[in-house]
Amino acid sequence: MSANVSITRRATFAAAHILCRDDWSDEKNREVFGACTTDHGHNYVIEVTVGGVLDPDTGMVVNLKHVDAVLRREFVDAVDHRHLNRDVEFLRGVIPTAENVAMAAFHRLEPHFKPARLMKVRVVETENNAAEVTAE
Amino acid sequence: MSANVSITRRATFAAAHILCRDDWSDEKNREVFGACTTDHGHNYVIEVTVGGVLDPDTGMVVNLKHVDAVLRREFVDAVDHRHLNRDVEFLRGVIPTAENVAMAAFHRLEPHFKPARLMKVRVVETENNAAEVTAE
Amino acid sequence: MSANVSITRRATFAAAHILCRDDWSDEKNREVFGACTTDHGHNYVIEVTVGGVLDPDTGMVVNLKHVDAVLRREFVDAVDHRHLNRDVEFLRGVIPTAENVAMAAFHRLEPHFKPARLMKVRVVETENNAAEVTAE
Amino acid sequence: MSANVSITRRATFAAAHILCRDDWSDEKNREVFGACTTDHGHNYVIEVTVGGVLDPDTGMVVNLKHVDAVLRREFVDAVDHRHLNRDVEFLRGVIPTAENVAMAAFHRLEPHFKPARLMKVRVVETENNAAEVTAE
Amino acid sequence: MSANVSITRRATFAAAHILCRDDWSDEKNREVFGACTTDHGHNYVIEVTVGGVLDPDTGMVVNLKHVDAVLRREFVDAVDHRHLNRDVEFLRGVIPTAENVAMAAFHRLEPHFKPARLMKVRVVETENNAAEVTAE
Amino acid sequence: MSANVSITRRATFAAAHILCRDDWSDEKNREVFGACTTDHGHNYVIEVTVGGVLDPDTGMVVNLKHVDAVLRREFVDAVDHRHLNRDVEFLRGVIPTAENVAMAAFHRLEPHFKPARLMKVRVVETENNAAEVTAE
Repeated sequence: MSANVSITRRATFAAAHILCRDDWSDEKNREVFGACTTDHGHNYVIEVTVGGVLDPDTGMVVNLKHVDAVLRREFVDAVDHRHLNRDVEFLRGVIPTAENVAMAAFHRLEPHFKPARLMKVRVVETENNAAEVTAE
Repeated sequence: MSANVSITRRATFAAAHILCRDDWSDEKNREVFGACTTDHGHNYVIEVTVGGVLDPDTGMVVNLKHVDAVLRREFVDAVDHRHLNRDVEFLRGVIPTAENVAMAAFHRLEPHFKPARLMKVRVVETENNAAEVTAE
Repeated sequence: MSANVSITRRATFAAAHILCRDDWSDEKNREVFGACTTDHGHNYVIEVTVGGVLDPDTGMVVNLKHVDAVLRREFVDAVDHRHLNRDVEFLRGVIPTAENVAMAAFHRLEPHFKPARLMKVRVVETENNAAEVTAE
Repeated sequence: MSANVSITRRATFAAAHILCRDDWSDEKNREVFGACTTDHGHNYVIEVTVGGVLDPDTGMVVNLKHVDAVLRREFVDAVDHRHLNRDVEFLRGVIPTAENVAMAAFHRLEPHFKPARLMKVRVVETENNAAEVTAE
Repeated sequence: MSANVSITRRATFAAAHILCRDDWSDEKNREVFGACTTDHGHNYVIEVTVGGVLDPDTGMVVNLKHVDAVLRREFVDAVDHRHLNRDVEFLRGVIPTAENVAMAAFHRLEPHFKPARLMKVRVVETENNAAEVTAE
Repeated sequence: MSANVSITRRATFAAAHILCRDDWSDEKNREVFGACTTDHGHNYVIEVTVGGVLDPDTGMVVNLKHVDAVLRREFVDAVDHRHLNRDVEFLRGVIPTAENVAMAAFHRLEPHFKPARLMKVRVVETENNAAEVTAE
């Protein structure tokens, strides 16, 4: 019997966003993005899952202090108390859906946990929807 | 032994806001409103508590369908997927703190439950803070 | 400066119920009770708040083991995995709304905590509604 | 580095059920189904996970409005405020455990998200148990 | 119509404790404190409610930054990642029940919010029990 | 189309622990384990996921009563209201991180569900971190 171990760290951020394309008509925007075509916001939750080998000296896959520092530096500090469409460098040019926010987070965080591995990023937008990006 | 009965109804809305006064310097705004001086947003929760006499025919203090209809018509429809500083008539001229949002909700909802009575409005802004307005 | 102390204990039960009066037409039942006029059920939560004097020997207002025993014996055992309209002696003849369930619980539990005092019974029916009965 | 994206949508429904086989003795039913052999009910949560390719125009794997519409039409409208043993066509002849409810939901929802793909259906029955069906 | 306003701030801390009196026999300790007579611990939640007059300039009853600072300095820093029986000056000589922890927090926090007023301290010990201290 | 089914059972326990190595200096312990180098505790949640074939007679992958009994006998009874470093036989000699607690639980529970299979053990230590062990 063999088993895989991972840890998951959760953080929160409050941000405004709008789902809307300038190159589409109001009707098309409404049809695709519904009520989200006006400025609004969310208390987002991000959960980061890192897998790897259990270090027998520390009992850890990766140090949570390191995960916290990376998560804050690479992602949360850039999006917390911000407008996702206007204020965030790495979201420029994309519609800030939960999927795109999770994808951006995954790509920014992914290089920083070696030899452990970023397995999953989950972005919870409301109590009723979330997006998940998993490593292949 | 005598007892009071009330029911509480919960609804959610997603809104953007900013805490900032134009007539204050950036320093003063930062000092008072901290990170909230830039556009951001929340998944708000509003909980409305209505007390009164238990109707023996229905087993209700007030019909939840009525509470829902009032809550939606008088409050949620006006703030959901909106920017609280710019888009909401009844919040014009006030700083949209949780306290002021709860106060506005209380005053808008209060006339509509008679002979039952609006006892409390609670507005939850994040998992770490909430404002409550109670009838005297 | 003086202060009041209370403790709150939470328990859960799963029950079926229906909101419907035999002496009313289908239309009237639908109008008043909406979707609840057919058999359905809930994971109920009951929260019991008991206030009183802090015993300096134990640091307790009332022993939680006693609260648990009373709550189970007088209420939860009678309603858990039951149909509230058909199987519960002390709910016979009342519409099992959250208000009436909370009222019945309050009256059954109230005599059993002296010299401490039952301050409040809260019955949560869904994540969106709850009833509360408080001592006058 | 490559990654998979999915979104998860949550809905709730309140239903009654009973776990019991007519062709078994009371003893056997009690032994297997425990307290569930009498009518009771739950606030169920269903979470539907759909994976696929991120549409660069919309930033979506699949439109949540479409997921909502399918989830409501194919599943929630048929089970909400119903007795799962008696009122639901597609549960006839099966014991309505969380596993069977999740399996039925999976099979009913699965054809409706193409070219995206239904990855998972999770049915939460109480705060202590849930069933999950995942695509192979 | 007049109304009262308050805000509630939430913080968490992780602590160990034991409920046991040296001057009692093992039997008596077991009888009164049950399973709590051995070292264990909790993720505590503390919720602090402060009421007062809404400042029209800020829309606040009291600045949450001030509440945070007081809560941290006067209480959370002293109990977080501590053993409540051994490491906390202001809990010496009392049994660290939820009631006593809430009472100690109330007395330590109470002087620091004037002209606003500390209305309530709630200490949640587990998902099933909490203690509450309210101003008279 | 084919699908996999699993059920997840949740239990809670309250325990104390300390993360600290006697063979390391205080500085090294602080650097690695941060605030956890002093006695503290948590309300742990353990979620156990068991997968397998749906029994058509019972509608179950595995009987939850069996999962409960195993979970209690093999794990929860040994850790609830205990100090994880001192009182738990099967954690001797390991640092009781969430990862190690989950790993120990996985190995103890794994033999007891055949022909069903233990797929996952998740141990939630605080609202912000959890460890997960999955079968390969």
